[in-house]
Amino acid sequence: MKSVNASVDEKRLWDDLMALASFGAREDGGVCRHALSREDIASREWLIGKARERGYRIAADSAANLFLTRFGCDNDLPPVLAGSHMDSQPAGGKFDGAYGVLAAFEALRALDDAGLETARPVTAVAWTNEEGGRFHIPCTGSRAFVSGKVPEPDQTDEEGVTLADALKRTLDAAPDVERIAPGFPVHAYVEPHIEQGPVLEAEGLPIGVVTGIQGVRWFNVTVTGEPGHAGTVPHAIRRDAFQATLRAVSALSTLMEDPDDVVRFTVGHVSVVPNSPNTIPSSVRFSIDFRHPERGVLDARAARIADLIAREVRPCTAEVAMTTSMQPVVFPDQITGAIAKAADTEGLKHRALASGAFHDAAHIASVCPSGMIFIPCRGGLSHHPDEWATPEHCAAGARVLAGALAQLAA
Amino acid sequence: MKSVNASVDEKRLWDDLMALASFGAREDGGVCRHALSREDIASREWLIGKARERGYRIAADSAANLFLTRFGCDNDLPPVLAGSHMDSQPAGGKFDGAYGVLAAFEALRALDDAGLETARPVTAVAWTNEEGGRFHIPCTGSRAFVSGKVPEPDQTDEEGVTLADALKRTLDAAPDVERIAPGFPVHAYVEPHIEQGPVLEAEGLPIGVVTGIQGVRWFNVTVTGEPGHAGTVPHAIRRDAFQATLRAVSALSTLMEDPDDVVRFTVGHVSVVPNSPNTIPSSVRFSIDFRHPERGVLDARAARIADLIAREVRPCTAEVAMTTSMQPVVFPDQITGAIAKAADTEGLKHRALASGAFHDAAHIASVCPSGMIFIPCRGGLSHHPDEWATPEHCAAGARVLAGALAQLAA
Repeated sequence: MKSVNASVDEKRLWDDLMALASFGAREDGGVCRHALSREDIASREWLIGKARERGYRIAADSAANLFLTRFGCDNDLPPVLAGSHMDSQPAGGKFDGAYGVLAAFEALRALDDAGLETARPVTAVAWTNEEGGRFHIPCTGSRAFVSGKVPEPDQTDEEGVTLADALKRTLDAAPDVERIAPGFPVHAYVEPHIEQGPVLEAEGLPIGVVTGIQGVRWFNVTVTGEPGHAGTVPHAIRRDAFQATLRAVSALSTLMEDPDDVVRFTVGHVSVVPNSPNTIPSSVRFSIDFRHPERGVLDARAARIADLIAREVRPCTAEVAMTTSMQPVVFPDQITGAIAKAADTEGLKHRALASGAFHDAAHIASVCPSGMIFIPCRGGLSHHPDEWATPEHCAAGARVLAGALAQLAA
Repeated sequence: MKSVNASVDEKRLWDDLMALASFGAREDGGVCRHALSREDIASREWLIGKARERGYRIAADSAANLFLTRFGCDNDLPPVLAGSHMDSQPAGGKFDGAYGVLAAFEALRALDDAGLETARPVTAVAWTNEEGGRFHIPCTGSRAFVSGKVPEPDQTDEEGVTLADALKRTLDAAPDVERIAPGFPVHAYVEPHIEQGPVLEAEGLPIGVVTGIQGVRWFNVTVTGEPGHAGTVPHAIRRDAFQATLRAVSALSTLMEDPDDVVRFTVGHVSVVPNSPNTIPSSVRFSIDFRHPERGVLDARAARIADLIAREVRPCTAEVAMTTSMQPVVFPDQITGAIAKAADTEGLKHRALASGAFHDAAHIASVCPSGMIFIPCRGGLSHHPDEWATPEHCAAGARVLAGALAQLAA
């Protein structure tokens, strides 16, 4: 009989990745699979079908997090979890999130195929709405798992659909799936993911053992001015919400300047009302994404944002709301050690590195020992249709995961 | 028998204005009636029904311009036209455009009620898509009338519907309306409109005799950068299309500075792709609306726009396309004189003033003697749900129009 690691099937995993990418496929080769969308629901059905073939326990909680469990010898023991998310950015790629879920599913099958019995159950998980693209609260699913309730169920997408309704629709589409309460005890959590940065590729390493995740603050800003006719209203009396936004974002960019280029500051979402060429904008809503590995830097600069915006938008007014605050996370040696050991066993070179992006693991880390496995991605590119990882690297990550899960669940 | 002027019915006109405002009524009291929309089609049916009751000739051309004609003694003579447009801004009011069409229709009824026979036919006209809110080419209808063909029929709205299809749908909805070719000979054109500026209200005058219209240049700009993950991509290698837009619009604002506050410069439409909080924007499309009464100023500053943008957006790239160029227009004494005389006859105080907004009259002025009548609007406000004119001022404008039409068609 083959070892667990050797039972990882590179072609099977790759075929699954390509199959999952067909749900919400974009013409440019990318993927647009918003959380709880028709495409997301169809991709869940596809994965549930594969889990059913294997005889796994299939369950979902009120946040529509999907749990596929391979039974252990003692199913009263808290399981070892592995996985990621299946939703994508609007112009996303085939690997961000999807790889983690399918690598975990492949690890379960490798445990089967190797005939390995584990003491603990091992569960592949797909967390809901990690990207926050449709409902602007990222990691909805892993947050719900940690807190025991869905955050902001009344929030709406651009079409006015509430999160609660979208969750109901998704759960109703899979009536045969067992319903469980969110937030059960977990022994350990491992999340495989593409690096979304350039380090592993540049150093020619197949595996990154992730030491932690930088912290993040998200803000929604609404600037309110006064509409008017573009041809008649004198500039002296205008309250143009877009010009005010321009001043505010310009000042924020100065606040966020960093000679070491460690601060990450992005205004990614901007919507202008009424958005007509010959009407002075009456309001603008924009997002702020601000990240840094040190809590002190995050707190100090975040504290200055609201006052700075209020000053810059005059004579307009602004409302500034912090929607997300995640402290930097450090993963424990128990998990990083298991991952490093699994990679060593496989003869795969690896290095320690921190995550620039945040992940569901940042939330789950608050309820159990957690960690992440990175594989290289081409050009460090992600959140992009051209996002790419090789079949070899995908399989290597799944082998390291399978080895780590075998240790943690033994 | 009453005079033509005295036959204008203030209540009838006001009731029509309120009825027309119900097509596309917004909850905030404003109107959203996009050109060729379901609401626009319904409002046309309503007006056609009223014209049919009066026995007017009802015709439409390929641009869906609607012509309601009261016959003269010699219907081979080119008619006198009066009117405006029925489409609104997305967050527009009850008067912009609508007032001009209904004042013209009221003037026709006043001619009827006064029993006045005119030598020439007199036609109330509703031009298509003046605002350019849905299809971003303003004055589609009056341009088509002047050139003999619909401009850019393949242009699409935000949902991918072509202008050609939207026109067909609108025309098909009124199969009984006579179809005529665009661009027949016209003797004179008068467009009544709210001022959309503060002058008449400030001076307590009911009537403005419009001397001309300032020139305008519209541009569409597309800035192209590179998407990427907001948490991982170092700022040193980013090509953030929104940050590039911010630099470009900031430099444009400096270019357009004017101590006399005569230049009008507005960025009213901005759309960001993919518009997700944690993805670096890959492209931004924005509009430029630039106006001035002097052609020299328009030409000199407009000529610098493309190079300035190209320089500021680096390392992104930009495409800059001028979509509209209208020279300043001066209305002839023949029309301003007829309007002033009609106001004097009514004992209505008036003054000469230029239009800050552009209008269909700017196009029609190239094919026949044209002019405009302004009435005051509250606070100079327009393109806004709170846009307002009083019943008295609306009727005063219609009386002056009726008097001017009687002179011009006699």
